[in-house]
Amino acid sequence: MTSNTFNQTKFTPVPPEKGSFPLDHESLCKKYYLLYMSCLSRNEDQNSKCRQEAKEYLGCRMENHGSVATIKLPVLIEKLQDPSLDFIFNIKVILTEHAKHFVDFASMPQSVDLLDDEMEWKAWSKRGDPVVHIELGKWADLAVIAPLSANSLAKISMGLCDNLLMCVVRAWDLKKPLLFCPAMNTRMYDHPITSDQINKLKSWGYHEIPSIAKTLICGDTGNGAMAEVDTIIIEILNKIQK
Amino acid sequence: MTSNTFNQTKFTPVPPEKGSFPLDHESLCKKYYLLYMSCLSRNEDQNSKCRQEAKEYLGCRMENHGSVATIKLPVLIEKLQDPSLDFIFNIKVILTEHAKHFVDFASMPQSVDLLDDEMEWKAWSKRGDPVVHIELGKWADLAVIAPLSANSLAKISMGLCDNLLMCVVRAWDLKKPLLFCPAMNTRMYDHPITSDQINKLKSWGYHEIPSIAKTLICGDTGNGAMAEVDTIIIEILNKIQK
Amino acid sequence: MTSNTFNQTKFTPVPPEKGSFPLDHESLCKKYYLLYMSCLSRNEDQNSKCRQEAKEYLGCRMENHGSVATIKLPVLIEKLQDPSLDFIFNIKVILTEHAKHFVDFASMPQSVDLLDDEMEWKAWSKRGDPVVHIELGKWADLAVIAPLSANSLAKISMGLCDNLLMCVVRAWDLKKPLLFCPAMNTRMYDHPITSDQINKLKSWGYHEIPSIAKTLICGDTGNGAMAEVDTIIIEILNKIQK
Repeated sequence: MTSNTFNQTKFTPVPPEKGSFPLDHESLCKKYYLLYMSCLSRNEDQNSKCRQEAKEYLGCRMENHGSVATIKLPVLIEKLQDPSLDFIFNIKVILTEHAKHFVDFASMPQSVDLLDDEMEWKAWSKRGDPVVHIELGKWADLAVIAPLSANSLAKISMGLCDNLLMCVVRAWDLKKPLLFCPAMNTRMYDHPITSDQINKLKSWGYHEIPSIAKTLICGDTGNGAMAEVDTIIIEILNKIQK
Repeated sequence: MTSNTFNQTKFTPVPPEKGSFPLDHESLCKKYYLLYMSCLSRNEDQNSKCRQEAKEYLGCRMENHGSVATIKLPVLIEKLQDPSLDFIFNIKVILTEHAKHFVDFASMPQSVDLLDDEMEWKAWSKRGDPVVHIELGKWADLAVIAPLSANSLAKISMGLCDNLLMCVVRAWDLKKPLLFCPAMNTRMYDHPITSDQINKLKSWGYHEIPSIAKTLICGDTGNGAMAEVDTIIIEILNKIQK
Repeated sequence: MTSNTFNQTKFTPVPPEKGSFPLDHESLCKKYYLLYMSCLSRNEDQNSKCRQEAKEYLGCRMENHGSVATIKLPVLIEKLQDPSLDFIFNIKVILTEHAKHFVDFASMPQSVDLLDDEMEWKAWSKRGDPVVHIELGKWADLAVIAPLSANSLAKISMGLCDNLLMCVVRAWDLKKPLLFCPAMNTRMYDHPITSDQINKLKSWGYHEIPSIAKTLICGDTGNGAMAEVDTIIIEILNKIQK
C-alpha cells in the first residue's frame, strides 16, 4: 500500500536537540562555514534568512563526522525502491522532531509517507483519510530504526514512549522483525551503557545492525558511525525473506 | 481536610501526548466521528470550534478501546465518597498534562482538589492559601495511580521526576501504601518490559491492581485494560483498614 | 584557558521544573514571603513585576531546606579560584534550564564561562568565536556535577542525553574523573532507587561526594543535602593531583 496523503503537509523546521552537532575539528566544512557567516553578515545576523546556508554547513559537519546519520535516509529509501529487488517495499517514514531538522523534504521520494508527532494527531482526525485507520504497528511487516541515537536507544531500552516513534516501538509485535542501527559519536559509543542497552534490545529479539568504525582525517579511528546503507539493505532483505 | 480552593481555576486543554488514542477499528464510534466531521465541515476545518465534538469522538474511542482509562476517574471518586462506606476520604487529584485532556471538569465533584503541574507552581505562591503549606506526600495516607500509562510506568520504574505526579511518587514514603493500576493497549502490555517494570514497582512495596483482559467486538481478546472501578475501591479499602 | 565570551548573553529566566521547591514548614522565610505577597498586592498579582521578591522568597526556601543546592555555586567557584591553591582552575559552568532559575548571574565571577542549552546552539554558529571549536568533554580535565538532582541522577544512570549537561556526561571519557554531589529532599533520598542509581554511576568509575544529613529547625534530621563546599573542594583537589 502506498499513499502520498501526507506529502502535502508543510513541515516546520525546528532547532535540533541540543548537543547533537559534531564539531568541525578538521575544518572540512570551512567552505560552508564561510558561506553561512557571509549570509549572516549580509542579513544582520538574522538566522531565518540563512536557513539553507545553515543547513548545508551543519549537514557538512554531520556528514564528515558521522555521529547522526539521518541525512542518509533518502539514499536508503531510494535503494529499497530499486526495481531490480525481489520485493516492492511500501515505506512510511516516522521522523522525530530531531530528525526533521536534517531531512531534505524536497529530496524525499514522493512514494513514501512522512509521519511526525504533530501529523499523527492531525491525521487521525482527518476527514475520510484511509490512512488514519491503519495503526502503523499493525500495518508494517518490518521496522528499521536508522539511525538510532544514544538518547532514543536509552528511551527504547527503558520503555519510554513520549513520541510517535517511541510509541510504535513500545507497542511493537515481537513476532515481527525490528532492526536498529546505532549511530552516535565515538565517546558516547564507548560508554559501557551503550552495549548494555544494545544487549537489552537484542534480548527482546530486536536485530542490531552494528555501527562501524571510521577513520577521521585527523587520524583518529572510532566506532559509532551508522552501518553503510548497503549493509542495512542486505539485512532488511535477509529478514523479509524469512 | 477538604478544600475547593483549586476548583475555580480554568484549565487550558492541550493536545494529548502523541500516540495515545486507540484507533476505532470496529467503527463503534462512527456516530461521533460523523458528528465531528460534520462540525469541521460547517466551520471550515477550524478544530477550535469543534472541541466538544472532538472530545466526544475521542472519548468514545477511549471508552471502547480502553487503553487509557482516565475517563473513569469521576466514577472512582464518586464511589469513594459513597456515604455508606466506613471511611470518609479526602481526595486530591493530581492530573498530568496528558490526563487533563480527558477529564471532564464539569463532572468532577466539587469536594475534590485538582492539582496540576502549573497549579503547583502558582498555588505555592498564592496569598494566604492554606493548601500551599501541605506537602502532598506528607498529607496523604494512601496514593492510587489510576490509570498508570506505559510511559509513566517507565518513568516511575526509573525514578524520573519531571512533573508533579512523578515527584510525589519519587518522594513517596514507602511505609504508606501506594496502589497502581496499569492501563495500556494490549501490544504495549504484552512487551516483556511491562512486567519487568511492574515487578520493579512491586519490589519497592507498591501494590499492583492488575489490568484485565477485555474482548473487543472484533473478537480479539487482550490484556491491558484498567481494573474495574469496584476492584480498585475494594483494594483501597483493604489497604486503608490495615 | 579562560574566556568571558558568553558572559554578555542575557539569560531569560524560566519557571522552575515542577515539584522542585521545598515548602517552608518552619516559616523561616516568612519575611520574604510577606515582601513577595505585598509586592503582588501592589501590582495586581502580576508576577512579572515581583520577580526579585519571588526569587528571594524561593531562594530562602531553597537555602533553608537544602534540597537543591545550586545557590552554592558562586561560593564553590570562588573557593576554586582562591590564589592560595596549588592549581589554577579554568572553569566552565553548564547550567540546566532548571538551574538557571536559581543562579544569580550578577554574583558569578567574570572569569567563568556560563553555558546553557540555547547557547550551545547559538555559540556553535557564531562568527569567529574561538570557543565554538572546543568540545567541552575534550577540553575538560575533570567534571563536577554539583548539585545532582534526583531527576538528573535518574537520567545519567540510564544514559539519557536530552540537554547539554546530559550529553557532556553521556560522552564523558571514563579515563578522566567525574565527581557528582547528590542533593535532593530526604524522602526522595531515602527511596531505594537512589542508592541503586548512585551505585550504577560508581560502577562506571564516577566518584560520589556523598550528601549529608542536616537537622532542620523542627527537629527532624534527614539525609540528602549536598556536601559542604569545602568537602567538594578537597575531593576535587584529591582527584586532580592524581
